[in-house]
Amino acid sequence: MQNKKIGKQTINFLNPISVVSFASIVGPKEGQGPLGTGFDYILENNLDGEKSWEKTEQKMLEHSLEIALAKKNLLLQDLDYFLAGDLLNQIMSSNFTARSLGVPYIGIYGACSTLVEGLVLGSILIDGGFANRVGVACSSHHDAAERQLRFPTELGVQRTMTAQWTVTGSGAYILEANSEKNDLIITQGILGKVIDMGQANATDMGSAMAPAAADTIIRYFQDTGKNPKDFDLIITGDLGNIGRVLCEELVLQKGFDISFNYSDCGVLIYDPGQDVHAGGSGCGCSASVLAGYLLPQMLKGNLKNIFLVATGALLSPTSTQQGETIPCIAHGVVIQGKS
Amino acid sequence: MQNKKIGKQTINFLNPISVVSFASIVGPKEGQGPLGTGFDYILENNLDGEKSWEKTEQKMLEHSLEIALAKKNLLLQDLDYFLAGDLLNQIMSSNFTARSLGVPYIGIYGACSTLVEGLVLGSILIDGGFANRVGVACSSHHDAAERQLRFPTELGVQRTMTAQWTVTGSGAYILEANSEKNDLIITQGILGKVIDMGQANATDMGSAMAPAAADTIIRYFQDTGKNPKDFDLIITGDLGNIGRVLCEELVLQKGFDISFNYSDCGVLIYDPGQDVHAGGSGCGCSASVLAGYLLPQMLKGNLKNIFLVATGALLSPTSTQQGETIPCIAHGVVIQGKS
Repeated sequence: MQNKKIGKQTINFLNPISVVSFASIVGPKEGQGPLGTGFDYILENNLDGEKSWEKTEQKMLEHSLEIALAKKNLLLQDLDYFLAGDLLNQIMSSNFTARSLGVPYIGIYGACSTLVEGLVLGSILIDGGFANRVGVACSSHHDAAERQLRFPTELGVQRTMTAQWTVTGSGAYILEANSEKNDLIITQGILGKVIDMGQANATDMGSAMAPAAADTIIRYFQDTGKNPKDFDLIITGDLGNIGRVLCEELVLQKGFDISFNYSDCGVLIYDPGQDVHAGGSGCGCSASVLAGYLLPQMLKGNLKNIFLVATGALLSPTSTQQGETIPCIAHGVVIQGKS
Repeated sequence: MQNKKIGKQTINFLNPISVVSFASIVGPKEGQGPLGTGFDYILENNLDGEKSWEKTEQKMLEHSLEIALAKKNLLLQDLDYFLAGDLLNQIMSSNFTARSLGVPYIGIYGACSTLVEGLVLGSILIDGGFANRVGVACSSHHDAAERQLRFPTELGVQRTMTAQWTVTGSGAYILEANSEKNDLIITQGILGKVIDMGQANATDMGSAMAPAAADTIIRYFQDTGKNPKDFDLIITGDLGNIGRVLCEELVLQKGFDISFNYSDCGVLIYDPGQDVHAGGSGCGCSASVLAGYLLPQMLKGNLKNIFLVATGALLSPTSTQQGETIPCIAHGVVIQGKS
């Protein structure tokens, strides 16, 4: 059996894992942001005709998978597995989406790192010979997340300047083995360890998650012998403005300067004038930015090689109420574009 | 690349995936049940010295992994990955356990089917060459689950006769590639589809989950050409007394008679006199019964070949409050003992 691990954590996919299709849906606020023109569909309002925000999130997740399949004239039965996760308790949006699909389902949870957890697991299924084609999808909805994880939205609680804004958005991806035309290929993946530096402030998750992101980035460079210059872009999932600076600093402390090509999905998705304070967050953040901005840029040839490190704060309201600090994780995936 | 799928959903592991160690911890009620003597540790009370039931569950999950490792003189750093999930919102027990391990972590959610989701994914990681050794663990805690998913426990709400009793229990498993002495081998796995027959009664989850279990069992026989006689035991995770009968009937309707060798972990774990109504449920049900009863029976030679189909009700309190029916799933794993 061929060992596909490099170093301690990194996985080298021996077969080309092609991202053959992808789609994104976002809410109105994200549609008005700087990446607005790249998303496949923008909701007119946060309910979009549904009776609850939770139902809207589920519809968004389901619809983004349908769009991704339709772009390549694929049907649901063409998928061997559907991998999905979201922020709602019991990953409700993913479960109810899977219900309508009739495709074997793998429910995953990594908070806002879920998309990359899914992309890596999906690639493992294909590279290991367990599947030919898988769908991976992920979502979050601002209002559904706020009322579940923080305060009743009607209360209008003032947000701290360190708080991030949960993205209303979803992204869906179709991965295939041995695709003839390989414009977007997943070449490597790295599944992270849980890091908790003792931060207990649930309104500053960027700072809490930054050490986990740094750990995964540093580990990847140490495992592979690569360095930041091997990438056009290193991009974290949702550290926001505050966590981004901290991550860059932590990575530099280990001798890797990523200042020249490092960004964060949560920084890119909103304009500073949109009153989101420290930036975007949520499973839908990296899920929609990858499909709505990064991969299109790769197809245009503007980006050739990216390292996406999605970050997740693995807290729960219960753990916060019980005085716990915030365990965090970051999973990474390397995607190569047209050469 | 070798295709490891048989039929539509079943996976054939080409490399022997050995279950080299396992451990279980249960609460006092489960310890007093008919399987009580098989568990590694029985809590004296439901708190076991912790300040909350949630912390007790996390300690139980962590401790069961430690016991499983210690039985084979293994250390945490010997694990390539840790896969875990539980019933608490944001899979809190698993996340906080992973925090203390320093092992790359894959968070999964399949409600009470989570253990088998983990065993199949763990086997995939090993069979695909991505890992040499993985830890898989799963837990539930009666009181933590009740107050989160149903009613405040202090309220003492009367339970319906169709309701099941969430098991306080955890199970941990160490899977390895190419172990020299293979007494317990995972040979096949099947990841299920989400089935929802329109049942909306959250106090009768056995009936809701039975069609999902039947779907996975029938699909497995159709995929492989095997029949019920090929197993010493076919056992579902937590259908309980009511769901068990329904599952048997649904499988028979497709021509497979499992009446002679079919049981359910939720039926076995409690004595009818323990006032649990329809039987046991929860992630910890199949997780503790497999480690505390089934695998020991296999090592003794009393069982040679089992098909464990863990069942999960993918509802959430929010989905029930919003009038939704219950989506369900069942994942299966075939384990061979001493030949």
